This record gives sequence, C-alpha cells and structure tokens, in this order.
Amino acid sequence: MYECDKPHEECGVFGVWSESDINAAHSIYYGLMALQHRGQESAGIVVCDTTGPIGNICSHKGMGLVSEVFHDDKLDSMRGNIGIGHVRYSTEGASSLENAQPVFLNYLKGTLALAHNGNISNSKEIKDKLHREGAVFAGNSDSEVIAYRIAKERLETNSIEEAVINVAGELLGGYALCIMSPQKLIGVRDPWGLKPLCLGKKGDTYFLASESAAIHSVDGELIRDIAPGEIVSISKEGVRSQIGITKDNKAHCIFEYIYFARLDSKIDGINVYDARINGGKALARRYPVEADVVTGVPESGLTAAVGYAEESGIPYLPAFNKNGYVGRTFIKPNQSERVSSVHIKLSVLESVVKGKRVVLIDDSIVRGTTIAKLIKMMRKAGATEVHVRISSPPFLFPCYYGTDISNNAELIANEFTVEEIRDNIGADSLGYMDLEDLKEMTGDLPICRACFNGDYPMLVRKD
Amino acid sequence: MYECDKPHEECGVFGVWSESDINAAHSIYYGLMALQHRGQESAGIVVCDTTGPIGNICSHKGMGLVSEVFHDDKLDSMRGNIGIGHVRYSTEGASSLENAQPVFLNYLKGTLALAHNGNISNSKEIKDKLHREGAVFAGNSDSEVIAYRIAKERLETNSIEEAVINVAGELLGGYALCIMSPQKLIGVRDPWGLKPLCLGKKGDTYFLASESAAIHSVDGELIRDIAPGEIVSISKEGVRSQIGITKDNKAHCIFEYIYFARLDSKIDGINVYDARINGGKALARRYPVEADVVTGVPESGLTAAVGYAEESGIPYLPAFNKNGYVGRTFIKPNQSERVSSVHIKLSVLESVVKGKRVVLIDDSIVRGTTIAKLIKMMRKAGATEVHVRISSPPFLFPCYYGTDISNNAELIANEFTVEEIRDNIGADSLGYMDLEDLKEMTGDLPICRACFNGDYPMLVRKD
Amino acid sequence: MYECDKPHEECGVFGVWSESDINAAHSIYYGLMALQHRGQESAGIVVCDTTGPIGNICSHKGMGLVSEVFHDDKLDSMRGNIGIGHVRYSTEGASSLENAQPVFLNYLKGTLALAHNGNISNSKEIKDKLHREGAVFAGNSDSEVIAYRIAKERLETNSIEEAVINVAGELLGGYALCIMSPQKLIGVRDPWGLKPLCLGKKGDTYFLASESAAIHSVDGELIRDIAPGEIVSISKEGVRSQIGITKDNKAHCIFEYIYFARLDSKIDGINVYDARINGGKALARRYPVEADVVTGVPESGLTAAVGYAEESGIPYLPAFNKNGYVGRTFIKPNQSERVSSVHIKLSVLESVVKGKRVVLIDDSIVRGTTIAKLIKMMRKAGATEVHVRISSPPFLFPCYYGTDISNNAELIANEFTVEEIRDNIGADSLGYMDLEDLKEMTGDLPICRACFNGDYPMLVRKD
Amino acid sequence: MYECDKPHEECGVFGVWSESDINAAHSIYYGLMALQHRGQESAGIVVCDTTGPIGNICSHKGMGLVSEVFHDDKLDSMRGNIGIGHVRYSTEGASSLENAQPVFLNYLKGTLALAHNGNISNSKEIKDKLHREGAVFAGNSDSEVIAYRIAKERLETNSIEEAVINVAGELLGGYALCIMSPQKLIGVRDPWGLKPLCLGKKGDTYFLASESAAIHSVDGELIRDIAPGEIVSISKEGVRSQIGITKDNKAHCIFEYIYFARLDSKIDGINVYDARINGGKALARRYPVEADVVTGVPESGLTAAVGYAEESGIPYLPAFNKNGYVGRTFIKPNQSERVSSVHIKLSVLESVVKGKRVVLIDDSIVRGTTIAKLIKMMRKAGATEVHVRISSPPFLFPCYYGTDISNNAELIANEFTVEEIRDNIGADSLGYMDLEDLKEMTGDLPICRACFNGDYPMLVRKD
Repeated sequence: MYECDKPHEECGVFGVWSESDINAAHSIYYGLMALQHRGQESAGIVVCDTTGPIGNICSHKGMGLVSEVFHDDKLDSMRGNIGIGHVRYSTEGASSLENAQPVFLNYLKGTLALAHNGNISNSKEIKDKLHREGAVFAGNSDSEVIAYRIAKERLETNSIEEAVINVAGELLGGYALCIMSPQKLIGVRDPWGLKPLCLGKKGDTYFLASESAAIHSVDGELIRDIAPGEIVSISKEGVRSQIGITKDNKAHCIFEYIYFARLDSKIDGINVYDARINGGKALARRYPVEADVVTGVPESGLTAAVGYAEESGIPYLPAFNKNGYVGRTFIKPNQSERVSSVHIKLSVLESVVKGKRVVLIDDSIVRGTTIAKLIKMMRKAGATEVHVRISSPPFLFPCYYGTDISNNAELIANEFTVEEIRDNIGADSLGYMDLEDLKEMTGDLPICRACFNGDYPMLVRKD
Repeated sequence: MYECDKPHEECGVFGVWSESDINAAHSIYYGLMALQHRGQESAGIVVCDTTGPIGNICSHKGMGLVSEVFHDDKLDSMRGNIGIGHVRYSTEGASSLENAQPVFLNYLKGTLALAHNGNISNSKEIKDKLHREGAVFAGNSDSEVIAYRIAKERLETNSIEEAVINVAGELLGGYALCIMSPQKLIGVRDPWGLKPLCLGKKGDTYFLASESAAIHSVDGELIRDIAPGEIVSISKEGVRSQIGITKDNKAHCIFEYIYFARLDSKIDGINVYDARINGGKALARRYPVEADVVTGVPESGLTAAVGYAEESGIPYLPAFNKNGYVGRTFIKPNQSERVSSVHIKLSVLESVVKGKRVVLIDDSIVRGTTIAKLIKMMRKAGATEVHVRISSPPFLFPCYYGTDISNNAELIANEFTVEEIRDNIGADSLGYMDLEDLKEMTGDLPICRACFNGDYPMLVRKD
Repeated sequence: MYECDKPHEECGVFGVWSESDINAAHSIYYGLMALQHRGQESAGIVVCDTTGPIGNICSHKGMGLVSEVFHDDKLDSMRGNIGIGHVRYSTEGASSLENAQPVFLNYLKGTLALAHNGNISNSKEIKDKLHREGAVFAGNSDSEVIAYRIAKERLETNSIEEAVINVAGELLGGYALCIMSPQKLIGVRDPWGLKPLCLGKKGDTYFLASESAAIHSVDGELIRDIAPGEIVSISKEGVRSQIGITKDNKAHCIFEYIYFARLDSKIDGINVYDARINGGKALARRYPVEADVVTGVPESGLTAAVGYAEESGIPYLPAFNKNGYVGRTFIKPNQSERVSSVHIKLSVLESVVKGKRVVLIDDSIVRGTTIAKLIKMMRKAGATEVHVRISSPPFLFPCYYGTDISNNAELIANEFTVEEIRDNIGADSLGYMDLEDLKEMTGDLPICRACFNGDYPMLVRKD
Repeated sequence: MYECDKPHEECGVFGVWSESDINAAHSIYYGLMALQHRGQESAGIVVCDTTGPIGNICSHKGMGLVSEVFHDDKLDSMRGNIGIGHVRYSTEGASSLENAQPVFLNYLKGTLALAHNGNISNSKEIKDKLHREGAVFAGNSDSEVIAYRIAKERLETNSIEEAVINVAGELLGGYALCIMSPQKLIGVRDPWGLKPLCLGKKGDTYFLASESAAIHSVDGELIRDIAPGEIVSISKEGVRSQIGITKDNKAHCIFEYIYFARLDSKIDGINVYDARINGGKALARRYPVEADVVTGVPESGLTAAVGYAEESGIPYLPAFNKNGYVGRTFIKPNQSERVSSVHIKLSVLESVVKGKRVVLIDDSIVRGTTIAKLIKMMRKAGATEVHVRISSPPFLFPCYYGTDISNNAELIANEFTVEEIRDNIGADSLGYMDLEDLKEMTGDLPICRACFNGDYPMLVRKD
C-alpha cells in the first residue's frame, strides 16, 4: 500500500572483511536483512576465501527477498572470509535476474566484484566512450559500466585504489560502492555525500554498510561515516583512507532522514529517529491545531507523530491495526468487491478515534490515494475532524540521484495547490513541512533539497 | 521470536452465504487473511455453487500462509456463492497437508464440509466408539471425527441442525464450527463460550467469523456474537437460531483479549483494544513505579503499555524498531555468530531509552528468553532501569481447549518465584497482572482463567 | 503421438512382502517403473514396518511419472518391509491427486491400503447401498468404495481373507487388487481373469505384480499367475491361496497381448512377444502382398512386423528414427507451422523405403490420423507402395472393464468400411487381423473379444 | 546406461533467418528438439525482431532439456524473426547456467549472439592475450572468448564477415558457429571440417543446423553442407558465401557416422544410416561367425546389426525390450539391491535368444561394464553363444576437438588386448571394426581417425 505509494530508495550495500576464517556470507546475510527496506527486488552475495593459497570466489544472486534468495545450504556452501552483498529496488527497466548485483568480472589483474547504491547520471556517456574504445559488455546496467571502467583503469594504474579514485572522478550522480578486488574490501562515497555509507567493526572484522543499523545487526560497532568523496581500503595492511575527490557543495539526501533509512540508524552524525521527532515538532509549531489525539500512518508516519504530540501536548496514540501477514504476493481485490488493499493492510481502532479530533501524520503524499482512503476510514470509525500533517515539503522536481521520485510520483503538488490537495483527500486541514524547517531535522548538515526546490547539487541530466 | 515464545491459538474459521452469484472464495480469502494471526501453518477453502441445478463443490487446501496457498487463477476458478475457510496452527502431531481443513465428506445426504477452531478433549473416546460401530476414516484429526459423527447423526435425524445439536451435546472442549451442508451455512459455538464466533452481514450476504475484524475486512458489519451453545443456520429461509446446549458456567477464553485476537476485533461485546488498555491501567495501579518512559514489546505489549502510560502519567514512546521483512523462513543465526534472532527482528532506539528509567510491558512470559534479551538490549542502549510489567497472570496450569500453553510453555512460573524470574530475566522489578484485576479487562463477562488458577470449566482430560 | 491415439490400460499394481528388514519402497519403486507403461498420470506407494512392535505406516502419492513423484530422500525415508504401489492412467473424471492410489483407510481392525487395476461396473450401486447404510467417504473413486466395503465386511467376518472374498463376490467388472492389511499382503483377481496378476519370489521376499516383467525388474522369479477368482494371502504363515469365486466363462483381455503388456512379460502362460510374432504371421497368411520390405510403427507395431516378415519371407527393416527426447510436456506445433507432432517424434529413413514397396504394421487404428501421416511421410521419402496391416480386428464395441476404448476411440470402424478407411488413410491396401486368427496369438486361452464382437463375459453396464 | 558409457558430442546449434514476421523461436525450439541427442545439459535461444525500426532482442536459457527450459508462454513471448539456439553437453568444468549458450554481448557495433559446437584447443592462449590487452569478461567459457574476440575484431574491420574470418584464422580445434549480428545470420565451420554444419530452406526462410534432421524437423529442405573453412552470411542481400580459411588436410569426424549423429541425417553427402549399414557389412566380412540370430544394443548398435545380418545372411531380430520411461532422474539402485541400472532400462526377450547362437553388435566399448551385463543377461535368457562385434576400432588416443573420449573413457583398449577384453566382458568372440574398413562407411570422404591411430589433423594441445 503505502510502500507502493512512496518514493523508493534504489539499493543497499554491505561488505565484510576479516583475516580470520569466518563465514562472511552469514554476516552479509544478516546485514542485508537489516537493509531489506532499501530494496526488495533482488539480492546477491559474492565472497572470496583469502585464507588459502587461491582466492576461491563464490557468488549467488536471485530475485526476491534476502530470505527467499538464500537458503541454509546455499549460505553454508559459500565459503569465504571477505565479501560484499546487495539488495536492489529498480526504477529503470524491467526487473530481472540479469540486473541483480553484485556485478562480477574477471580481467588481467584477476577478479572484481562491485555493489552499487545510487544512480550515475552520465553512465550513458561513459558507456558510449567505452564502446568506442572497443568495450564489450554482457549486460546493460550502470553498475556493470562502473565495474568495467574500474577494471580498465586498473590496467593503467599502480593500485586498485588509484583506479577507483580516477573513475570516481568521472562519475556524476549519487553513489555508494562496495568493491571486492579480490583480497581487499573498498568503499567509496560520492563527493556530494548524497548516498550514505559507513564503517563498522567487531573484533578484527570490518564492515561497510549503507546504514549503521546493518552493522549493529551483526553485533558490530559503528566507527564512523565514510566522508563524501572518501575512499577506504581494508586489507592486511589495515584500513587506509583518502579523500579522492572534493566538491564544495555537500548535499546529503534529506529523504534518508524523512523516510528511507531505518529508525535506528545514525547517518552522518544524526540519529534518524531524532530527525523525525524534530520534524514532527517543527510541524506542530508551524501548523498547530486544536485536537484530541495525534497519530501516524504506520510505519513511516509514526515517529513524526510522536514529535508532533510532544510539542503540541496533544496525546499520541497508535490508531491503526496493521496486518503483518499482507505481503507482496497477496491478491488485490477487484473493483466489484469494494474492498480496498489499504483496508486489508490497515484498520482503524474505533476506541481511539471515535468522537475525537485527530491529527494524522504521514511522511509524504505521492498520488494521495492512500491517505484519502485512510481519512475516510477514520471518519467511518467516528473521527469528527481529521487534520493531516506531512513531514516533508511537496515534491516539485524529479530526483536524478537514485530515488524514483521522478517516476512513481506524478508530482501532484505541481498540478494542485495545497488547498486543492486538502480537498481531494478529504482532510479538514493540511500542512506540509516548510522548506525552512528542514534544518530542524538535520541541523547544520548540508542537505540536498532538489526534489523540493530544484536546486540540484550538480549539472542536471537532460533526457 | 515472540511468536514462537508465546501461547498460540489453534485456528480461525470464516463462512460466507449469499443467494446472489458472488464469488464466495474471494471473500473467504480476505476473511482468512484477516484471521491469519490465528494460524499460519495451512489454509483451505471449500465453496459450493447453489445457483445452478447441481450444487457443484470446489475445494483447495495447502501448507503455508493464505497468500501462499491461494493464487489468482486458483481463486478465480473456485466458483461458488457459499463456502467456508480455515487457517490452522497445530500443536499436536506433525503438521501436514492431510490435516489441513476444511474437512470434506460425502455420504447418503450429500456432502458436508467443516472448519473447526478449538480442541475436543474427548475425541479419542468418540472415535473409538465410532470405530467399534464400523466407522472407516481416511485421516486422523479431531475435525474429521466431528464431521463424521455429524454425517452419521444426520441419517437418524430430520435435519442437519438437529444432527449438529445432538453431536455438540457429546463434545467436551472448546470449539467454534463453520459447516457447509451443502446449501446451508451453519455456525456452532461450544456451550461454555470458550471459542469466539460471530455473525456479520453485507447486503444480502451473511458471514460467520472467528473475529469481527474479519467481517470488517470484507466491508461487512458485525451483527452479533454467536451465543455459547447456540447454533445458527443460514439458508434461503433466512437466519435461524436456537440454543442447542446450555451450561451454567460460561467461560470465555481470557487470552483472546490478552493476546490472541486482533486489536480491532470486538468479542462478546468487548473491544479487544479497550480490554488491553484497561489491563495496562490495572497494572499501573497495582505496580506503580517511578520512571521516565513506558514502552511495550511489539506488537503484543504495545496497547497495554499505552494504558499503563495513561494511568501513570508517564509518557508512552515506541522504543523498538521492528524489521518487518523477517518472516518464518529466515535462517536462524548459529551460536558462534553471537547474533540473536531477537536482535535481527527488533532493535532498541537509543534516543528513546538512553539515560532513562523504562517501564517495559509484555503480555506474557513463557520461557523468558526473549524478554531477557530485550532487557539486555535496553541496558546496552543506555536505559538506567528496566521495570517489566506483564499484562497476564503467570501460567500455572495447562490449557485443554485449543491453545498450546501446555506444550510450548515449560510453565516456568511453576518452577520459580516471581523474584527468581525477575532475577533470571535481569529486570529491576517485575509485576504480573493480578488474577483479581482481570475483571478490569472484561468486566462482568464470565471468563476461563484455568491456565492461571486450574479452575477448569469442565472435567479435565487425563492423558 | 501413437500413445494418445491408442487404447489405454488404466493401471498397474505391485506388492512386496518380506520378513526381513528390507526397504520395500525401493523394490516397489523399480517394480512400478517396470509397469510405467500401464499408467503415467500418478504414482503412489504405501509401506508398513512390521519388524517393530508397532506397524508404522508411511504413504506418498503424487501426480506424474514414478521418477517424478519419488526422489531419493523420500524413498529412503519410507521405512517398511512390506508394501504396495500403484501407477494410474485415468479415463473417467479429471485427473487429480485425490484420485491417486493406493487408497488408505483406518477403522476398528486397524489400517487397510489397497491398489486397484481395473474397472468395477457396479460400483455406483455398491456405493449407493453403502451410503444408505450410513457410509461416509472422503473421496469418490471406485477404489475407495472397494476398500471401504472390505473394511466394513471385515467387522462381520473372522479374517481379512474372508472379507475380501465376500466383497469380491459382489463386484462386476475386471480387477486385480493388491491389499496390505496391515501385516499381510493379499492379491485378488477377478473371476473372469480379465486383469492380469502374478506372484513372484526372490529369497524370502514375495512379490505381486500386474506383469511378470516387474518381478524380473527386481531380480525376482515368476512363480505363477494368480488364477481367475483366486485370492492369495502372504503372511508369516506363508503363502495361502483359495479360489474365492468361480465363473465358467473365463475371459482374459486380448489387448494385453496385442498392445498393453510389456514385450518381455509372460501372462497366463503365454509370452507376449510370441503372441505378437504369431499375430504377425497370421496377418501374413491372411493378407499376403508382394513387397520389398516389412516394417512396423514404433514401438507397438514392430514385433508383429517381425512375425509378418518371417512368414512372408520379405525382409524386416526398421524404417523410422524415433526421437527419444520428445516427452509429455513438449509444446505441440500450431497449425500455421505446418509441422506435425508425429513428424517431431518419428522420421522415415529414406535409405530404407526409397523406391520400395513397403508393408507397414501397426497394432490398431483408433482415429487413423497418425497412420495417415506416417503413410504420407513414407511416400515423401520415396516408398512406391504402402500396404498397411493391423494386428487386431476393428474396434466395434466399447470396453467396460478398464480400458478407454469406449472413450478415446470414436470407433471409426463402426462408421466406415475397411475400404473407406484404407482410402482415408491413403494406403495401397489394408488388412485387419481376422477375429478367427486371434487364437493364433493365444492358443487355447479363453479370451475376451468383446471390443471386437460385443460378446461380453458378463452383464453390460448401461449408463 | 549406454548413454553414460559412450563418447559424447558437446553441442548442437541451430539458426533461423526470415524476412517475414515469423516466430523464429518456435522453429528454433523444434530444431533444437531434433538436436537434443547432441546435448542435454542446457538449452538456450536468442531471437531478434528485425521487422520493426529497432531490432529488439530476447533471450532465454536454462538447465535441462529443451522441453523443460521452454514452456509455451515463454516461447510465445519471444518475438523475433531471426535467431539462434543451442543445446549443450559439457565435458569440462561444472555444468551451470552461466555456461549455457548462446553467448550474448553488446559493444560499439551493437549486439552479437553466438552458439558454438566444438572445442577450441588454443582458447587459453587467446584469452590470456585478450586479458593482457585489457579485456574484461563476465564468465569463463571458450565461447565467450570467441564472441569477445569477434566483437573486438569487428572494430578494426569493415564487416562482421571479415571479422569472423580473421578470428577463425586464429582458432585451433573443431568448431561450428551460428552467429546473429544483429540483423544477419552467419555460419562458420572449422577448416578441417571436424564439426558438421548445414544450410536449409523453407520458402523464404533459411536455416543453419548441426544436422540435416533438424532442418527436416521444421519441414525445411537441406540445400547443402557448409564447406570446411566456409563462412555463409544470410541477410537482406541474400546468402553470401566465401571460403575464409583453407587447410589441405580435411578431417571429418568419423564418430558422427558411427554414433553421434541422428540416423536420418545426411552429413557431408553421406547418409548416416547408410554408413552404419555399411559398417555392419564390413564387420560381417572381417569377422564372420556361425550363428542363429544377429541383434544390436539399442539404439546405437541396431543399424550396424541390420547391416551385419544382410551381409551374413543370418536373420536380424530385436532382442531387447527398452523401458522408454527411464530418464535422467531415476534413482539408481544401490549395491545391496543387486538390481542394475542396465537391467531396469533393458531386458532380454527370451523367445529371441533361448537356445540360440547370438551375434551382438554395439558401436563402441568404453569401460565395458554395460556390454558385460548385457552378455550375462543374454546367457541367463538362454543364449548358447554370444559373439560381440563393435562397429568402431578401439579408442587409443584422446580427442581434443569436442568429444569427451579423453575424459569419459579410461581407454581400456590401451591397457588390454582384444583377447583380454573379450575375456573380461565374457563374450565367446569379439571383433572390432578394422581401421582400414572405415572407408567402407564413408567412402572417399577424408576423415579424422585420431582417436584410433593418433594421427591428429593439427598440432596437439599439451596440457
């Protein structure tokens, strides 16, 4: 329901490096499960055994959730003490196994595996150039282009790190990469800091992950975020780091805090939970209203609702029952049945809303169909007023850096005024987060707000 | 996690009757999805087309969730305007397709399909008697015995209703039955009222369901609960009802309110949500404590936590992030990985508990391993004190009426004092719901509290 | 191709009894594989472990070939030293798992498993009577009715053997039964001898099988055929036998010799191979022709062709290449492709037929479409003449005893003269086996020729 | 059985080119089914729609038989009027989906798909060179190397044909290639003529195939064989041909005639059937014997047996019954069951061999275990003498050109004398085809006999 009526993150990446004879695939499995919210289309793991004389490599990818792609026997059979993994959500092209990651290549210097979160807006230009130089590809994803480009560059340079830095300098867009090459684990983050990536540790094992929650899920500790433009290389020589590329205008994606990231992650020094609580508080100050209860749309609106409640003094109460068994494969009701998918997933608790004036918080409005149904359900359950507060500003511009805001959204905020939207969804009042108030969520952190105000951190791709 | 460390309900039933040419299977599908929490082992639907000259019958059962067993084509192919469905959780014997319900039989009077929630404690005696009379069975479930017994009785009586009443009079235990025979839909509830069953309507379509939430999920309205010992028969003659068997000691299962039923159901006149809120309030009065925040174990402890917060004035805050993608099939971590299943499903929000004195509410303690891990996680996240409150009294006696309290639980409350349990789980204080306070949840409704005090409403089965 | 343009046998049965701790399921698996030609729709095995104190029973059935239904793990897990198995081809009703055999029941005297080859023409009458007596069934096959009737009868008799004889006396039609009850293995054959059943041995292990080839496949030796109306019971007391029912008019199915049975089986004292060779010789005497080469349609026409060649002195040569990889699941060509299924399975060897006068032998003509295509292919490959000889008389009457002649065949021989059929299929000459010549195949053995002359051995079922 | 005790061909290729809007995938499906005997491990099809403005490409590959990999929906969804297909048997490395063909690439000049039958003995050297030049590969098969090499060469040449010729000039070994690039269909054959490839036509549609039988299976006509070293290119300009590379020593693989190819194929002007008949005749002249019946091991020995019979005047009779349902997945009997896999697939017809002196023909002896079992079975069935004749000379040298003679065979002929082998297998006499007599099979056609005499047509690979 809400899942398909929301902007989507494209991917999550996870990497493990250890000198001991651990089963890296198991750690990656749990790391990817903790990142599953970032992509449910496909999952993959590549590991390498560096404890023996030959670095034997093992790879497995498949369509579906991590728990569907990897079964016990498969995981046990993947021997290797270092490795990388990937979960994918796709906005472009048909979803298919051939596009599942990590990408894997072999060339003169050996093997290269790469997992990529983000979107490269100049990948077509790079691929065309490579084609002209004689490149031959087996697939057609952005990620294969990056991996190929790095492999080629490696032939001209003295180290894989140097090759990665050179290639990163050519890339436009947002990206976080985990690379296994073949005995090293390398992490890279785009110079604007659009996509998150962090470093963790447990004993002598190192982790790279899109979010700190994934590091905690394997009992590791967050060491720090990778800096924008930084490349870290983990090998027997330890953890080496350098800033490969520098950009003056840092631009961390604000939607990680509003919706994408897990509530228990800490990204670039800021707790996602705190950011959402503070967003709710800002909403309460900007759009106060007399009401009896504050509630949120599960799960994404709940935390901002708690913040709104705290600031306003109106009590917070969960007002929905969520059916946790409704997964991706359930059969959607047809028209004649007058039963909506929303209703099958969520129902309103009459005791909470009956005779009450309700403040209902959600994180965004894409097409508005879901929120309209929820408001109707609330009124049917006896709510006397329903005031909607949205913990993000309206989407007005497409995102080119790895979310599907441009695709999924029909950007209704461009077509209608706030008052028209309020009328459409049937709310008594409607308030969107003010662009200025975003700083309440993330403080001094430089953020990308391009989807709200069109202020892109780099040259926009024109299709 | 919690799911496997909790008492379990054994089943959910759903029935549809319509004179129009509707696709009953679709309604049953959504009804069963709303009852999925009552059993995830197998699912089944039987429908009958009574609009044509011959009552054509179609049946499908399978292992797994409703959404796994029924795909679009299958559902569309199941033509019929009346039908019954079943979801199952099994405590006895191996789980297998042969034990999936509804049971289906054919005999002199035509066909009989039956879906059963509950447990018949004298089924072995009944089966032995039938065997001596020459009965031949294809399987070996309680439910087949009931269906067989009804079919045999039907040969001696003037109506299916009379047969059902006669058989019900022989049964000991808790049960709610949905029967299709073959043009009628019949519902029966045990005379003590142990198992819930209610009647609903939408236009000229009638529903029977274990819980009112299932009726709401198909856009129907709850008419009323079926009374203990009542039999309702829905046919072209309308809805006919009679009390088949009367027992003086009504005994509604208290665990429907504490844990089993959905938060948005209303059972025997009482909102499950209200009962849990009131349970939390009673806990707050009985075991007050100085604290900074009240929270609950998702999902089952959250509502009592809200009640505790309301009564105590301490703010309620969700303190856990739940990974909604962790399903039944994920690979459990092995010992060497020092990662617990609990930790993969739930993580503590540091911002909520750091430096705080926390009241943590859950609905029950079975083995105590889960709550112990959660307390540890809370302390690691910075909680200075963790006070545990349980919204049910300690389990001291096995249940014979269709939950698995006797099996799953090792009934640690029999082996340890409350102080010892507190020490085991590492809480700063521990308070169980007082037996006397249960009436705060359900008011004057006569309830079965046998699992707490051994006061069984009928003769106990001795194995 | 030919397979779906031929009469079909309905089933094959196999039983094993041993006092030693053997894995009976393995033997049944190979026995059923040797009987696979008798039914490819479903397969099933039931075994019982009689070596321990409790006779533990294990059952598995599934749709498809024996090698598809049973995998290694499954077979290994089926512990038991006695058991029965079944392969099924169905002519009546939809093919479904519920109709797969063996049938399994439990009742006062324990358990009963039954595998059945044949067709009971009065099963409806028996079932109606049982229904009136109060019987309750889980499915609706003939075989369940027989099993149920035996279980009921067992309650009134002193032994299972007595019960089986009493029930056999009520059955009309052709049948061969393998029964496991529960420590004995029992075989029964209809009193006319329509369906084959034989007894074999290897060390201290006994076998029952539809054909001797199945006994040889498990390295056993054929002891003898079960006599018409005989019941054999194998237990710790050894092999006991009695004639349960006697009929004067024995009537062994002639189609076992013409087409159904395996070439290497010996049924009722006659080698199937010899019968076919002799059939071919009779055809050569009855319908001689001047020709250069004799050939047969694979596989069913090859042996009669060898016989025709021997008698006529014209050399026999295989003239077709058969694609052994074309199974049940291949995609049939559509019209526009002008490629026929026949052509994909069979192709003509030009070197054999070019410029030659060919005698082409097949065992029967049902609709005639296949033979017409083969004749066309032969002419395209250069045959100057194609003379067709059929090693059975024309079908003129339906079969009620367990083949699908009445269903599959449109009995074209009733609608057209031999000359018209010859013209339709495009042959230069056509000769059917003469009714009188059938005795050349089976000597003095009394045979059922009802499908050719309407002379049924018992009262005909009228639907 | 025999299948795994025989030399194996590695692959079959098939190509279709049409200007009309046909569904090429359907034709390729039937073409591959006709070539299924050349490889059962994996199957794949790539098609291109050249009727629209953009040449849309569709690809599907999978493990298993053609009929398992391609289902109806899949085939219908593969739109395209030209395409290539492949069936594979692998001798080197683990069999896996990643090695399934056709190989597909994209590069500056567009796309390239390639299907390959054969073995390139210098592929490692070519790959190493490409790696040093900076090549990046996604997999590690010979075929990917060839495709990659052609794509690179295409950048330096004026046409794809020129590129193919240049690359072919570098390749050592036997190969037949089908290439789709992207609007042309190109066929190439190694300059020695080791691997077969032929051209066919039906209306305005052209075919390339490993064997003429595949062209006949889609109702096409064989035009001619592709000549050794020839490249044919089919496009809107029609069929263009040139000899790319010339070698003086042509060397057609003799095993296509002895065993690999279908009986109804014509390769390099010689009917496979005729070659086998003549081989049998040569055997009869070289090793005459007094006997009563000549027979062959199904299927591969049957035709030589017919030839032996014709020459010797001893009658030919099929002496085995073959169980056509025993596929790749059946469970092999374990030792304790004393049942052999051979026995489950084949049984001896007693009527044919009892009291007879038998001549038994097979095409080759690899390990000798199968023929030994068959001889034993013959004697058990009553044969008084068994004289074995083998329609090929003994294997003494490994094959480097795409069969698995070097791998599968332990080349027992190197370790034992003919007399010792005769004794081992238990035959009364044993005669191998004489090296000199091979010319009886193939006349003046220059053949490769390296596996018999070590006379390799090109430099031998040394591993």
